[in-house]
Amino acid sequence: MTDPTSPQELATKLDAASGAFERWSRIQPPDRAPVLEAIASALEEAAPKLVAIADEETSLGEARLRNEMVRTVFQLRLFAQAVTQGEYLGATIDHADPEWPMGPRPDLRRVLEPLGPVVVFSASNFPFAFSVAGGDTASALAAGCSVVVKAHSGHPRLSAATAEVVQHALASAGAPEGLFDVIFGTEAGRAAMADPRVKAGAFTGSIEAGRALFDIAAGRPEPVPFFGELGSVNPVFVTKAAAERRGPAIVSEFVGSFTLGAGQFCTKPGILLVPASAGLADLLPGAVPGEPLTLLNSRVRSSYASGLDELRNTAGVRVLVSGDPMAPTALHTTSAELLGNPEAYLREVFGPAALVVEYADEGELLDVAKILDGQLTATIQGEDDDEVAGELIGVLAAKAGRVLWNQWPTGVSVTYAQQHGGPYPATTAPATTSVGTEAISRFLRPVAYQNVPQHLLPPALRDANPMGIPQRVS
Amino acid sequence: MTDPTSPQELATKLDAASGAFERWSRIQPPDRAPVLEAIASALEEAAPKLVAIADEETSLGEARLRNEMVRTVFQLRLFAQAVTQGEYLGATIDHADPEWPMGPRPDLRRVLEPLGPVVVFSASNFPFAFSVAGGDTASALAAGCSVVVKAHSGHPRLSAATAEVVQHALASAGAPEGLFDVIFGTEAGRAAMADPRVKAGAFTGSIEAGRALFDIAAGRPEPVPFFGELGSVNPVFVTKAAAERRGPAIVSEFVGSFTLGAGQFCTKPGILLVPASAGLADLLPGAVPGEPLTLLNSRVRSSYASGLDELRNTAGVRVLVSGDPMAPTALHTTSAELLGNPEAYLREVFGPAALVVEYADEGELLDVAKILDGQLTATIQGEDDDEVAGELIGVLAAKAGRVLWNQWPTGVSVTYAQQHGGPYPATTAPATTSVGTEAISRFLRPVAYQNVPQHLLPPALRDANPMGIPQRVS
Repeated sequence: MTDPTSPQELATKLDAASGAFERWSRIQPPDRAPVLEAIASALEEAAPKLVAIADEETSLGEARLRNEMVRTVFQLRLFAQAVTQGEYLGATIDHADPEWPMGPRPDLRRVLEPLGPVVVFSASNFPFAFSVAGGDTASALAAGCSVVVKAHSGHPRLSAATAEVVQHALASAGAPEGLFDVIFGTEAGRAAMADPRVKAGAFTGSIEAGRALFDIAAGRPEPVPFFGELGSVNPVFVTKAAAERRGPAIVSEFVGSFTLGAGQFCTKPGILLVPASAGLADLLPGAVPGEPLTLLNSRVRSSYASGLDELRNTAGVRVLVSGDPMAPTALHTTSAELLGNPEAYLREVFGPAALVVEYADEGELLDVAKILDGQLTATIQGEDDDEVAGELIGVLAAKAGRVLWNQWPTGVSVTYAQQHGGPYPATTAPATTSVGTEAISRFLRPVAYQNVPQHLLPPALRDANPMGIPQRVS
Repeated sequence: MTDPTSPQELATKLDAASGAFERWSRIQPPDRAPVLEAIASALEEAAPKLVAIADEETSLGEARLRNEMVRTVFQLRLFAQAVTQGEYLGATIDHADPEWPMGPRPDLRRVLEPLGPVVVFSASNFPFAFSVAGGDTASALAAGCSVVVKAHSGHPRLSAATAEVVQHALASAGAPEGLFDVIFGTEAGRAAMADPRVKAGAFTGSIEAGRALFDIAAGRPEPVPFFGELGSVNPVFVTKAAAERRGPAIVSEFVGSFTLGAGQFCTKPGILLVPASAGLADLLPGAVPGEPLTLLNSRVRSSYASGLDELRNTAGVRVLVSGDPMAPTALHTTSAELLGNPEAYLREVFGPAALVVEYADEGELLDVAKILDGQLTATIQGEDDDEVAGELIGVLAAKAGRVLWNQWPTGVSVTYAQQHGGPYPATTAPATTSVGTEAISRFLRPVAYQNVPQHLLPPALRDANPMGIPQRVS
């Protein structure tokens, strides 16, 4: 059941996904809400069973897994709400206007419509929330797309069990057959991304794997969008005033954030820039727990070990805290060294490691900010009257999808204003987010209707507004 | 002055564009409006001189060129209005909420911010409206980006003269130096698209040239978005009832649309599907003017001649109207033949040629619609009670950016609801439009601010809302 999907099986599933798209895309958005609700309820009901399987396949622990299930169910319900409200459709109506300054304007009406079948690549580190029934699946289904999920090799049995729950819920809710399916194996995933029936890809994972899939999506005879959330070091900039007033608290919160979930979050703060004068590096050894942590699986363990090793052996890096190879590790360097060879230091190490960078002058914070690659997040620990803050926020906003002030980047709330994205390599699609209600727009494209009679228009664009959604009129 | 831009000159211009972006992007959107207005006024003032140069370099004729200038100036003013109103910023505010169902929500605020320096590739067929100071330039500047335009080889002197007018207007309005520049030559254009300082490309032209630039943009170490508007055959579907009731009028309007501007519009209707029973093909010879038309330049002329030749020599095609090789030409085939070898028939021939396709049964309209590639437009000439209309509109909406009813696709009005785009190969970015106010969103990316104090937030996100723009709150 979790064997690699054969090319024949894949073709059957993609045919079914295409057929289901034809039907699902024509179901009016509010009528998709009960189907999303049905998946949410089915997951809630199956939670004890699914959490138990997840606990066997990952080392995340039951408490975290239960919380992640809450997030997963919440996401589905939030998208059910979004399709009911219909604001995301961007319904815009320009009535005909013979006086329009550039010449008579026809009746033009635009609405967002679904892209087609989507392939979703699951992540290892969120077996529920960024996996089979996670945010990408929820937002694609809400948009009106059909979904084929490529299961992650780190939790195959959970993937199959979750898919069964979802499929059963879909069938009970009367959704078209083939609307949702799951496939296994790297080859099947690559083949799905290359397949002409597939109209978009969504991915959360490493830069290497994400870039390979992006290249497939962009290299097709018909290129399609690929929404990849790849890598980020999520730097934290501590101003002098903040370090002086709150140094020990900042160190302890930083440790909490970079070791949370054994450092296996996309938003783990991997770099902390602190003023050398405040001596915060000396507080790290006392703040970092020495016990080894359990990483997700053997692949993550070995890549953590080798990434850490490389960083340790970079000129100028000294080890602040190190015990067992799998224990949280803090390393140290200076901003002068970092600025001399940024690529060596500004690399994501997936796992509980972080680099503390000491600077002499606050201007160095700007120097480091300016050479950053794209980031999911960038954080300032500062004081309201910090002189450097205004310019630093401006530079960081050009580099990151989310800029934080006196909070920590781990813990990505699912809300309307959330932005989980950023310039490459944080993502392959910096204009989009993979968390929050705006994630739905990845799977939509605008269509304008010109001079179309009322009864032939999509309901969202009719003057009578039968769905009661927000319409922007002329 | 219109010599190919050297690598050294390009580097200087891109450095200047990067520097200008730093400053321009931080100017608040409403303060960009006077600068856009200044460009519009300067173009208006220089219109007689610019139109005269355009008239020497293209064969579009003074009347059309003057109209195109009106459009160009209007676009700039419409974007000035858009940045003043600020709705395009998508300002969204989620206040902190300890009761948020998935766990306490921080204060999160999202706004759209500019991407960076943009390279704009001019089109041959719109020397004003899709060229140096055209829609891409206007929307990118409005978004807060700096712009380097790659001039089209079809109107080099006009490009240089227009650039001079724009640069003078920018300087007078106090815009940062380097905000806008122009480059010449294919090599310089490719090098600009590959350059790490450039963060997006916008293009209007052929599938071949557009795909080559898309591949450069996607293949960079840091891939960037490429908004290419490439090719489209813009099919027109005539139902039986419409052919019976309005046959002669449809034929004459079709001829008007496909020969407008010598058939050199992206939205030229290249295919007309008509019921064989109505005998509309026989009306074509009387409706199509026999005089040769002047095409834009020798490259367009030779590619028109060879494209037409290929279509003429496709099995099953017979010539309905043909005189001088450069005269409007109508060809004929049947939907059965088209369905047997769609790629041979569904190809854009840039120039005054069109293919009339006869069908026996209205079901064939659906068959043809279903095998279409992505299109900028698809048109139905129908009657309100046509049984096929509902399904046909649904299929066409999945294939085209704009679906028309009883109007013609040429003439793309610049409005709020306009959508000039479509799935590949109509464009390389089906979620975007290159015409209308929404075109600005191509050059923006969202940034979320978490827990940032009021005075450090962008004005668009402050509770006091100093810009008076629409804010979506919680």
